[in-house]
Parts: sequence; structure tokens; C-alpha cells
Amino acid sequence: MKLIYFPAACSLADHIALIETKLAYDLVSIDHGKKTADGRDFLAINPKGYIPALELDDGTILTENQVILAYIAEASGRLLPEGIGRWRVLEALAFMSSEIHPAYLPFFKDFPEVEKARARQKLAKSFAILEDQLGDQPFLFGDQLTIADCYLFWVLMVAPRSGVTLPERLNRYFARLKLRPSVVRAFAEEGLAL
Amino acid sequence: MKLIYFPAACSLADHIALIETKLAYDLVSIDHGKKTADGRDFLAINPKGYIPALELDDGTILTENQVILAYIAEASGRLLPEGIGRWRVLEALAFMSSEIHPAYLPFFKDFPEVEKARARQKLAKSFAILEDQLGDQPFLFGDQLTIADCYLFWVLMVAPRSGVTLPERLNRYFARLKLRPSVVRAFAEEGLAL
Ligand SMILES: N[C@@H](CCC(=O)N[C@@H](CS)C(=O)NCC(=O)O)C(=O)O
Ligand SMILES: N[C@@H](CCC(=O)N[C@@H](CS)C(=O)NCC(=O)O)C(=O)O
Repeated sequence: MKLIYFPAACSLADHIALIETKLAYDLVSIDHGKKTADGRDFLAINPKGYIPALELDDGTILTENQVILAYIAEASGRLLPEGIGRWRVLEALAFMSSEIHPAYLPFFKDFPEVEKARARQKLAKSFAILEDQLGDQPFLFGDQLTIADCYLFWVLMVAPRSGVTLPERLNRYFARLKLRPSVVRAFAEEGLAL
Repeated sequence: MKLIYFPAACSLADHIALIETKLAYDLVSIDHGKKTADGRDFLAINPKGYIPALELDDGTILTENQVILAYIAEASGRLLPEGIGRWRVLEALAFMSSEIHPAYLPFFKDFPEVEKARARQKLAKSFAILEDQLGDQPFLFGDQLTIADCYLFWVLMVAPRSGVTLPERLNRYFARLKLRPSVVRAFAEEGLAL
């Protein structure tokens, strides 16, 4: 499969998940004019116009970060527990993509200060919830990394742009994840400085 | 299971899905002070403070609309196709909850006009994408109703509050769904006028 991505964008979560699962993948970046590195018009591939998009081997295009992450987990049989743990991971992904990700928009797009201030409140509250969920565990759902950690890594990476300080345990968790070989490799492949 | 809901809120999607699947359910409403009708403090049940929440028979609480909908579908073996169709349904749910639902906030909470105007643009674009997906099918994904239709019904029900006019086929689809026995029953149970 091919991950259509933009360096350092939320597609980084899928990139890390692909490496963790050991699935074979190709990376195809897009430019700001929405042309893919292999010369295609991205809007024809995904009319919603945003990344990530995952192109399956039969040409099917799958979009929405949390859905791509779940697809990668199911395709590999990794990074997603069974039973109630599976629902907890999906719930965390839904929380991050429907509540946290949209709260970053005012900073990405430089919206008026009133919106940034409101978003900071929302983010601080959301981080407190994640901090509580993490507790003293190595990963968000215990001893094993799941696709929720892949998304959470990106969420935390972006946090400084909002000016919201991360709670202590999330901060340490982020520092630990940054040293993981999959993260180091994803950064290198996207041309990012660690 | 128990659906913790607020009348006419996005929990309506889960309510309709519960009726469609024929699963047994109880309804527990919350008031604006976040007390549940059975006398509990909702913030102790769900620190995120929003509905829907689904309480399973063993007391487990599941949150996030799209995840509750997927849970209802799996628990009943209904409203979710197999194979690639399943991913398409999950993708549509993720789209509605991460892109459309947050775009309603400026209208729910009366944010400044600049935000409403921006949200209207986003909504119009999102409705055009859903209209294209629907095409001339009876339901969003063909001949059978799925959990994506349960959510889409609520999304379309709320649209007038944004001032964005629905494209024609979505409008007809909404009018048709409104006559469905499950929808009629859900409205009655939530005390809503059809
Ligand atoms: N609902 C989508 C949102 C994806 C999204 O916002 N992607 C951003 C990058 S982090 C993007 O492509 N933005 C560019 C644009 O919207 O033009 C998801 O969860 O995948
Ligand atoms: N990310 C949540 C959002 C749920 C949500 O926004 N629920 C609204 C009703 S439609 C709510 O409870 N709002 C009250 C509040 O936030 O205080 C989901 O998808 O379930």
C-alpha cells in the first residue's frame, strides 16, 4: 500500500503505525498545490483534499486518519487489542480526531485570538483527560503500543504550536516515544529533524 | 444497554440505530446540570462531559458517537456491511464526526459571525461530498441502511440551524428517512415533534 502524506502532518501517525506493524509500504508526498509526488491530482484521489490517504494495492483509496490506523492494525493483526480494549483504542482515536485535531486549526490557520484562546481551553482539558488515561502506564493502554499511541504522538508533537503546556506524564511519554526506532525512522523518511 | 442521551442531540443517531437493530435498550436522559435521569453525576460517568454515552450491561461506559454506532452494529450483526463496504461506512462516520459535527459548534454556541461564515463554507463543501456519495441510491451505501445513515440523518436534521441549504438529493433522502418507523419511534421516545 501507499501512504499519501505531507511531512510532519497527521499522516505521521499512520507512517509510524506502518513501520511498527512491519507491513510493506510506499510513501507518496503531496505538495501545497495538491499534486502528488507521482504526478497525480490529489483532489481527484480524495475530493476532501486532506491527507492522510491510503492507497491499497487494488487502487482503493481510504481516508480519515483513525480509519486508516484501524485498517493498518487489522491488516497486520497488530497494534489493536481484542475485547473491550479494542473499543477503548477506537474511542481514544475518535476523541483525538473529533475533539483535539479540530482544536489545532486556529493555530495551523492563524484564526483570530478569540478562537485560539477558546481552543487552548479545550486542548488543556483534553490533555488532562489523556494524562489521566495514561496514568503511570508506558503506553496509553498498558504495556503494549497501540494505534492510539501513534496518533497521540502526533497530537503531542503539535501541542507546542498551541502554546498549551503538556502535563508532566504526557510530556515524559512523548520524550520516550521520540526515541523509539519506528519514530526515528519515520522522522528520517519524512526529512524531519528529531 | 443504556443510552445516555439528550433529546434531539447527536445521540439520536445511536437511538435510531438501537431501534433498527432490535437490540434491547433503556434510555437515560441528562439535564443541563449534567445529572442523569437516574440521579447520577454525568461527569463521573464521562469526564469529557458530552453525550452520547453507552452503558453496557456490565457497567462499562463507551463514548464517542461513531464508536458507539460501530459497537451497536457489531453487537447486533446489523447495519454494517463486510469487506471494503465496512471501511467505507467507518470512513463516512469519521468524516461526519471530525469535520461536520465540529463545524456546527458556532451555531450551537453562537460564536462570532466570522466563525459562522467559515463554518458555512465548510458545511456546504461537506454536504456536496455527501451528496456525491449518495448519488441516486436509497441509502448512503446502497440499498441497505447502515450506521452511517443513522448519523447522517442527525447531521441533516441540524443543517437548517447553520443556514446552509441542503443539496436536493440529500434533502429528499432526509425527507424519506423521516418517515421510517425507527425514526418516528425515536422522535416519539425523545419527545420531539416530527
Ligand atoms: N478528518 C481528517 C482530517 C485530516 C486533516 O485535517 N489533515 C490535514 C493535515 S494534519 C490536512 O491535510 N490539511 C490540509 C488541508 O485541509 O488542506 C482526518 O482525521 O484524517
Ligand atoms: N466527539 C463527540 C462529540 C459529542 C458531542 O459534541 N455531543 C454534544 C451533543 S450533540 C454534547 O453533548 N454537547 C454538550 C457539551 O459539550 O457540553 C462524539 O463524536 O460523540
